[in-house]
Amino acid sequence: VLVLISIHPGKKERIKNKKQKRSQTERGRGRSSSLPTKTLNPSPTKPPPPSSSGGGASHRQPTHQAKMPLGQRAGDKSDSRYCGVEVLDFPAGDGLPAVLTHSLSSAFDFLLAPLVDPDYRPTPGAVLPVAASDLVLSPSQWSSHIVGKISEWIDLDSEDEQLRLDSELTLKQEIAWATHLSLQLQACVIPPPKRSTCANYARVVNNILQGLTNMQLWLRIPLEKSESMDEDHDKVNNNNPTSETVDSWEWWNSFRLLCEHSSQLYVALDILSSLPSMNSLGRWFGEPVRAAILQTDAFLTNARGYPCLSKRHQTLLTGFFNHSVQVIISGRSNHNVSQVSEGVLSRDENHTEDTPTQHALSPYLDYMAYLYQRMDPLPEQERFEINYRDFLQSPLQPLMDNLEAQTYETFEKDTVKYTQYQRAIAKALVDKVSDDEVSTTRTVLMVVGAGRGPLVRASLQAAEETGRMLKVYAVEKNPNAVITLHSLIKLEGWESMVTIISSDMRCWDAPEKADILVSELLGSFGDNELSPECLDGAQRFLKPDGISIPSSYTSFIQPVTASKLHNDIKAHKDIAHFETAYVVKLHRVARLAPPQEVFSFAHPNFSPKATNQRYTKLQFELPQDTGSCLVHGFAGYFDAVLYKDVHLGIEPNTCTPNMFSWFPIFFPLRKPIYVPSESPIEVHFWRCCGATKVWYEWALVAPSPSPIHNSNGRSYWVGL
Amino acid sequence: VLVLISIHPGKKERIKNKKQKRSQTERGRGRSSSLPTKTLNPSPTKPPPPSSSGGGASHRQPTHQAKMPLGQRAGDKSDSRYCGVEVLDFPAGDGLPAVLTHSLSSAFDFLLAPLVDPDYRPTPGAVLPVAASDLVLSPSQWSSHIVGKISEWIDLDSEDEQLRLDSELTLKQEIAWATHLSLQLQACVIPPPKRSTCANYARVVNNILQGLTNMQLWLRIPLEKSESMDEDHDKVNNNNPTSETVDSWEWWNSFRLLCEHSSQLYVALDILSSLPSMNSLGRWFGEPVRAAILQTDAFLTNARGYPCLSKRHQTLLTGFFNHSVQVIISGRSNHNVSQVSEGVLSRDENHTEDTPTQHALSPYLDYMAYLYQRMDPLPEQERFEINYRDFLQSPLQPLMDNLEAQTYETFEKDTVKYTQYQRAIAKALVDKVSDDEVSTTRTVLMVVGAGRGPLVRASLQAAEETGRMLKVYAVEKNPNAVITLHSLIKLEGWESMVTIISSDMRCWDAPEKADILVSELLGSFGDNELSPECLDGAQRFLKPDGISIPSSYTSFIQPVTASKLHNDIKAHKDIAHFETAYVVKLHRVARLAPPQEVFSFAHPNFSPKATNQRYTKLQFELPQDTGSCLVHGFAGYFDAVLYKDVHLGIEPNTCTPNMFSWFPIFFPLRKPIYVPSESPIEVHFWRCCGATKVWYEWALVAPSPSPIHNSNGRSYWVGL
Repeated sequence: VLVLISIHPGKKERIKNKKQKRSQTERGRGRSSSLPTKTLNPSPTKPPPPSSSGGGASHRQPTHQAKMPLGQRAGDKSDSRYCGVEVLDFPAGDGLPAVLTHSLSSAFDFLLAPLVDPDYRPTPGAVLPVAASDLVLSPSQWSSHIVGKISEWIDLDSEDEQLRLDSELTLKQEIAWATHLSLQLQACVIPPPKRSTCANYARVVNNILQGLTNMQLWLRIPLEKSESMDEDHDKVNNNNPTSETVDSWEWWNSFRLLCEHSSQLYVALDILSSLPSMNSLGRWFGEPVRAAILQTDAFLTNARGYPCLSKRHQTLLTGFFNHSVQVIISGRSNHNVSQVSEGVLSRDENHTEDTPTQHALSPYLDYMAYLYQRMDPLPEQERFEINYRDFLQSPLQPLMDNLEAQTYETFEKDTVKYTQYQRAIAKALVDKVSDDEVSTTRTVLMVVGAGRGPLVRASLQAAEETGRMLKVYAVEKNPNAVITLHSLIKLEGWESMVTIISSDMRCWDAPEKADILVSELLGSFGDNELSPECLDGAQRFLKPDGISIPSSYTSFIQPVTASKLHNDIKAHKDIAHFETAYVVKLHRVARLAPPQEVFSFAHPNFSPKATNQRYTKLQFELPQDTGSCLVHGFAGYFDAVLYKDVHLGIEPNTCTPNMFSWFPIFFPLRKPIYVPSESPIEVHFWRCCGATKVWYEWALVAPSPSPIHNSNGRSYWVGL
Repeated sequence: VLVLISIHPGKKERIKNKKQKRSQTERGRGRSSSLPTKTLNPSPTKPPPPSSSGGGASHRQPTHQAKMPLGQRAGDKSDSRYCGVEVLDFPAGDGLPAVLTHSLSSAFDFLLAPLVDPDYRPTPGAVLPVAASDLVLSPSQWSSHIVGKISEWIDLDSEDEQLRLDSELTLKQEIAWATHLSLQLQACVIPPPKRSTCANYARVVNNILQGLTNMQLWLRIPLEKSESMDEDHDKVNNNNPTSETVDSWEWWNSFRLLCEHSSQLYVALDILSSLPSMNSLGRWFGEPVRAAILQTDAFLTNARGYPCLSKRHQTLLTGFFNHSVQVIISGRSNHNVSQVSEGVLSRDENHTEDTPTQHALSPYLDYMAYLYQRMDPLPEQERFEINYRDFLQSPLQPLMDNLEAQTYETFEKDTVKYTQYQRAIAKALVDKVSDDEVSTTRTVLMVVGAGRGPLVRASLQAAEETGRMLKVYAVEKNPNAVITLHSLIKLEGWESMVTIISSDMRCWDAPEKADILVSELLGSFGDNELSPECLDGAQRFLKPDGISIPSSYTSFIQPVTASKLHNDIKAHKDIAHFETAYVVKLHRVARLAPPQEVFSFAHPNFSPKATNQRYTKLQFELPQDTGSCLVHGFAGYFDAVLYKDVHLGIEPNTCTPNMFSWFPIFFPLRKPIYVPSESPIEVHFWRCCGATKVWYEWALVAPSPSPIHNSNGRSYWVGL
């Protein structure tokens, strides 16, 4: 189905980075920290990234050139709005400006263009036959609209030594030329490895990467993985003679390992007409994919003769749009449709004036715009959280540190969470006090960690809702929050029902015992804000048949590919940051297997042998058709049973919708682990308790043992 | 065959460490540097090791107690001279002193003894039932003669949580007790992992290791590797239900990876009656094996009823003696032979007085002494080089730095090398000048890099030997060496034959062209002292039909396990030291596959396209029965063809005997690579040339890619 689309070139929104320095001690559970919504430098020690979109392509700097997004999507500021086109023939002389003007006027946003005549081979003393002098385009055109394409003939791993040496020289010359064209130019695409061993290619690229400051290199990789090779579409890999089973991810993996996970090395994926399994595609969402180069051959033809994509291709491209990957259309047109004459498209008038003829690939661009605009708008929550994507925060230390007012405020806005508490408290009150006793029995409820009062409010509302009488003790250790709590009680007129206790629950000497103990001391990983230790202290004043809300909670982990997080941690250049868990809104991540339970705690627990130490071994089996992958660490979640069937949590399969107090937690691995196809991942997690601190240790055992992470809590702990 | 043996307790020779600080810039080719023979701190940044014997056991400090070596072997100062005995039963009360006295008087040197009653299980508030109060032995007895044995019942990876927690507590308590017994006590043996997954055991040991300062932990590992399991001898591993194929090396490997290659974690190998293949045993010579615990069950009985070992066991034990591994006899006696009554043994009188009865295991000790004494004495060269074992030196930079007099002196003593040169020059002279021409033709020979004159002498001797007339130019860039050279010429009366040129050969303007160019600019890796670059400069003044001696040279590498070298490099805590090649006398190393050729250079090379850049890929196949292994890096060698069939080199299969100018070179890997059984190792080596320096880069490609090492020569290069 072809629909009317309208493309309005819009001003590109760029957020200036200079004011947005983050302190290294930023802590949070989710978007609870005092992060201004426009703050975004994801790695405190790294220079501010050029792009605002948390992992979006960033090969262009702010410019006065009009940009041509595929359409408006509320909240989407990522570079996936922009679509480029690959220039297949070398534009000699001043051909490039004409090609650029034509493409821009057809609403493409940028060109992937060769910079040097592909027929050129190095000869001593020769002048490089470049696409044009550096003067044919303005510096801002070079930097905003051109991604350089390195000559595809180069073969750094050829057995022919002369070809190898020529290739090395050419690659270096072309990158030097690209660097010269504009210091702002941010990317070159380098051709795919020509064979499965690419060590020499990687060596030369690695050498180049170390000399680059602003520019990124995008390694072009055909998106293919075959058990039985599909001969027809083996175009990119035609130099590989022994291609029984090809998984092009393996090429990428070898290349980036050899280049030591360089943070300037990215992937540009060639999308072909056949696609591997969804599980195998999913791996790429955790990899630094900057561009999807969509071959015109990958398009089908609809009943009206227009290009369209298979359902699987559509799903993949929507995934790319959602992961800030931008599309580049490539190939010869296979669809001769004259949109202008059919009149089904109304394009921007400013552009049709400039363009006597449509760009041959316009029908494909139109289809991309259709796909882009067809997506649901970003949910409101997602829009609020967009600047937190893949931004690493240290978990809160609410026991050691007093929370700030702003953090309380953010927490208190999470109405979904307090609604769940109110439901749980209501059920507990009904269980505690039968309808016959409502007028004679007053339930003693203690809120431990009352903060500025939201759980007190939820408790009183539950009492009102169920017609139960309540006596509330609100225990809070932060004297600043207690001040606000007092004024709240006064304001609401709750003095007769609520007693405020300014004390640490672990040392409070309660005047009576409670029927119900209400707390919200949960971290992203459940027990990581020391809820178990606090409630052990508080259950002294819970009656033997008393109820704790929450009554239990469980943590979960799953293995993930997360190259961006790995690189951000690596930028700190120490082991300690690799032995620390982070709170992070996971975005550019591939979740490799379903989450599994790690640690569970139930309250109250009056057993004399109770301990809060835990040790769990987990084995993850990846879906068979995934192929090999690289694991950078583990995403962690929790689920809490508040009371009976009332739960809340962030475990993806059961998560409470529209709750924003918690982002997932991320446990990194010091060295990413290669997991061969069909090999299980075995990971061990320990929760360790000392006199003054609690910490986790973790280690991989299979497919190969990692060091024990965070031994003795040397790098990361939570203070008691 | 039983022979008469005589065991004389001797004074233990200890070398004091305090005066022996090495500078970090120590450079050498072999024992050419100014290393005093008694200097030995192998890692400049580490505290001096307590033992002198380059990797030998060091659980004891200097003491006045008499030591009981197995015998005298000239030059052997390693702890493999001392044999211990395992105490199987817990000596209650003051039983330990009696056992110790009895064992020492029977010529055992130390005990491997339990410190705590093995029946003890932790109970709150209980006193640890230790083997005896700390007063039953003197501090020097504890530290010199007792290796602690941790209770064997502990099972840190049991599914039974209580057993697991008890085990953790017990292990920590026993280590704490061992630490208390004497700060000097240097080792405890910890029991073998009870199952193939040992992550929790490793975690606790890792925690402990981080708190230890002097003490080592020796992880006990049964020496077994089976394709088809031998049920009878599966004693240690009896808790492993699914033991189709057992390779106990895998346990060790997992354990040490989890413990992050801790330099205080060692292996004690239990030697059983059946042995795996020699290739699989060979792996252990590169691992930190401190002790071989020889089970009495492993012994056979000879015709006269005495214990003896199979040929394969003998070979293994000789290997251990040569690699500084000490033996501990363990088990019940299976051989009731009364040596005293037979009178075949004359033991030290001082001891027989103290001992009314022979130690039950004395026949086994006697056999060990027999094996030890039967070994050939250490060759003289080995004795000179013993303090260089596994000591890392930076390669010489003879182009950038001028050599010191002491280095020249060491080189000049290597008569084997100069004899080879003389033979080569003689053959070249005969080829250049036929017998008819001897009286009319004077050959022009240039020695480039003449130093203090040894090659000038070899040249003149070759001329005399062959009756050829010679005109020698001696070119030397080091003005200090030139002074010595002048006096040598005068002293020898060579003024008419030798012209001294004080110049760098690369810029000397020669007055005539040479028939023969003689040089010795070879490093341990052949070209690594830039012989190619120097000879490119010098061949300007070689006649087109001139001869270069050497005429070619080739470098070689082979993959090795070398845990000690890895740990010494790791102690520097930076990447640069892992991207540097070292000259090192390899000792505690497992050579995993035969060496292969890397780079070759031939001289003269007048081709206009000649380059000294090189790129080589090598694939190593390990013998099938080796099993898996860990590769820490590559040992490198060279072989040089001086002229026709006259060569010299250090490649192990073809090395020139008794030449000591060069030790091997070692290229480390930043992260040791696990090589699964039967997986090939693919490594790529590059020789790169810049304007001011030459360097190597290297990378593993299979079994898994490593980062490219030393990219752009950032860590290690040779200056031009």
